[in-house]
Amino acid sequence: MSLIVQKYGGTSVGDIERIKRVAMRVVTAKSEGHELVVVVSAMAGETDRLLSLAGQVSTAPDERELDVILATGEQISIGLLSLAIQQYGHKARSFTGGQVRIQTDTAHTKAKILSIEVDRVRLALREGAIAIVAGFQGVTSEEEVTTLGRGGSDLTAVAMAAALKADVCEILTDVDGVYTADPNVVPEARKLARVSYDEMLEMASLGAKVLQSRAVEYAKNYSVPVHVRSSFNASQGTLVVREDAEMEKVAVSGIAYSKNEAKITVLRVADRPGIAAKLFGRVAEANIVVDMIVQNISQDGTTDISFTVPKPDYPKAVQIVSGVAKEIGAPQVVGDDKIAKVSIVGVGMRTHSGVAAKMFEALAREKINIMMISTSEIKVSCVIDAKYAELAVRVLHDVFGLAEGTVVEEPL
Amino acid sequence: MSLIVQKYGGTSVGDIERIKRVAMRVVTAKSEGHELVVVVSAMAGETDRLLSLAGQVSTAPDERELDVILATGEQISIGLLSLAIQQYGHKARSFTGGQVRIQTDTAHTKAKILSIEVDRVRLALREGAIAIVAGFQGVTSEEEVTTLGRGGSDLTAVAMAAALKADVCEILTDVDGVYTADPNVVPEARKLARVSYDEMLEMASLGAKVLQSRAVEYAKNYSVPVHVRSSFNASQGTLVVREDAEMEKVAVSGIAYSKNEAKITVLRVADRPGIAAKLFGRVAEANIVVDMIVQNISQDGTTDISFTVPKPDYPKAVQIVSGVAKEIGAPQVVGDDKIAKVSIVGVGMRTHSGVAAKMFEALAREKINIMMISTSEIKVSCVIDAKYAELAVRVLHDVFGLAEGTVVEEPL
Repeated sequence: MSLIVQKYGGTSVGDIERIKRVAMRVVTAKSEGHELVVVVSAMAGETDRLLSLAGQVSTAPDERELDVILATGEQISIGLLSLAIQQYGHKARSFTGGQVRIQTDTAHTKAKILSIEVDRVRLALREGAIAIVAGFQGVTSEEEVTTLGRGGSDLTAVAMAAALKADVCEILTDVDGVYTADPNVVPEARKLARVSYDEMLEMASLGAKVLQSRAVEYAKNYSVPVHVRSSFNASQGTLVVREDAEMEKVAVSGIAYSKNEAKITVLRVADRPGIAAKLFGRVAEANIVVDMIVQNISQDGTTDISFTVPKPDYPKAVQIVSGVAKEIGAPQVVGDDKIAKVSIVGVGMRTHSGVAAKMFEALAREKINIMMISTSEIKVSCVIDAKYAELAVRVLHDVFGLAEGTVVEEPL
Repeated sequence: MSLIVQKYGGTSVGDIERIKRVAMRVVTAKSEGHELVVVVSAMAGETDRLLSLAGQVSTAPDERELDVILATGEQISIGLLSLAIQQYGHKARSFTGGQVRIQTDTAHTKAKILSIEVDRVRLALREGAIAIVAGFQGVTSEEEVTTLGRGGSDLTAVAMAAALKADVCEILTDVDGVYTADPNVVPEARKLARVSYDEMLEMASLGAKVLQSRAVEYAKNYSVPVHVRSSFNASQGTLVVREDAEMEKVAVSGIAYSKNEAKITVLRVADRPGIAAKLFGRVAEANIVVDMIVQNISQDGTTDISFTVPKPDYPKAVQIVSGVAKEIGAPQVVGDDKIAKVSIVGVGMRTHSGVAAKMFEALAREKINIMMISTSEIKVSCVIDAKYAELAVRVLHDVFGLAEGTVVEEPL
């Protein structure tokens, strides 16, 4: 008998029929003899409906009140799912974040989990009930309702699994696992049986949005085995686990890409201390998140600084940067929002040499110019012209032998 | 400076525009220097929407889960009203039943309030905020969400007013007070400046559904002055208060009527102990509420028992009663669902003699036959043929001098 935490997103509980289907799936797992804790999101569209109501009464809604309103979405879901499970003749008991109790800090709309008490949930399990927990929400020490930010239900699921020392945290979603590349771009992309937390983090932050990054980090910190699988079928998905020797045998496990960024370059910046701090400080003040930053060695006392920002922030960022450039005496700012970031990810990179070179050669062979390069321990990212994105992904997928049948992984 | 508790029902917060109007009214009262605690219901239609969702997943929804779902309706209202008030530049702070904290027993969907802690609400008031409290809901000692039953928001408002020792509890509604009779039936009906708790109770239970009976009882027990007034205009409504000498000068303060009942008579029941208990026990088992019961002295060892039930329960009640009649050897059961109950209500009855006789004479003059009579200390009710209901109300309104200008009440 295992203790399993399952998480279903808003699409999976989007209407009454889907809630019944989730209930059936939960009941099936329970009937196989497992103990079950089920984390659910608000029904698809509900959070947006509530945000819209709030937006109609207030131009800048107070975040405390916004959380009071938003938390109702998940509260309805847990009640309905409990009822649906009971209708199938099983015991079920719903828990709001406050009832569990999932204690957070006071940062409304983006609260951090501080601690989880699971006594009440454990009691429900001991009584043979399936525990249904509201995702996305918590409560402060002062009984204030908080929410964890978009995608927060993933975090709730992983944190519950950690607190309960569950055997696995299943993330039931609309894809059936993590692939070596986007199957829409690379038809022969292969579903990975396992990836490491770090690989998953790099893939998530690189646009493969299967799992919220904060949830992966939490899973890594508490060694929670996460199973990403389809909510529509029973097939095995991808296990996200601690890396092991087996994983390191493969240099590259996946190719990720993103077209959601734009790049800005400040030309001939004076190479003096404090200049970069001033530039990025001003960008940060506008709540714009900078991703890649590249600065090369200086020539003639000046250097070029390039960086990428999310595409929606591009116009605002150019405006800010142009202002700063004037102040610091940089003569020119150039930008480009028709770029793509293509990345190879793999824990094996640490022990395999020549991986980056192999990537650059492959792109060069296709005459794809590399505009920026950024690397981490287990990732190499190149910024290229957006029109070559899909080509680059296919070429790299091929070069690193990721296609079905190319690499034989050991069975789990 | 007064401490005022205001209660707005679902219709008053039925859409965004109405919520803004309520916010404006609350802010106006606050600007006049009062401290305000505002109790709100779910937006009109929301409770029914949630009940429908629950009904779609479950044929007999578990009441604990139903309460978890239903409580979200008021939670959305308090958040939205707080935001709307903040938008007008005032401080506002929402409170769920649990946050207040309104502690109830564990009778889900019809919980009773056990105690109210108001420290957090008082703190908000001291900080200059308007406190917005979710009506209809509470929490058990085990942090379970409970609801107080239909119309429970009235009870929340009165209970908050009692706990806070508020100067007045204003019930803002779609009628502008309590009238001597239904103005649709009696055009010259007069708005009462004041009624006693007991009169209000009799009127409420007699079909004048301005205020939930439990709320009136609570107000009476804690001597909370209740002001029933319109949410659409600022005119004075009706004060529900402890009775005084002034009120007793008037024998009859209002005429109530109801067409929502049906009557059943069991003929020639053996006049033996235990027979009535058996009959009404069986009816109660079916959760049918019996209102009037009339049994006259026996003749030849048998008697006739008549009683009224809510009209929707009439067919079921007849079926049950026919079964019991057979068991106890009563030869016949007759019924009638085309009846009306017309009542005169007034605390002055206690000290005025001949009030009932005056009523019977007035009806007789109009050739209206009286089928059943039932009296309490401050009320006389007659069951008559439904078609005479409006005529009877008008005649009684006239006979007891209730029309505008007939009776001059002392100013408050």
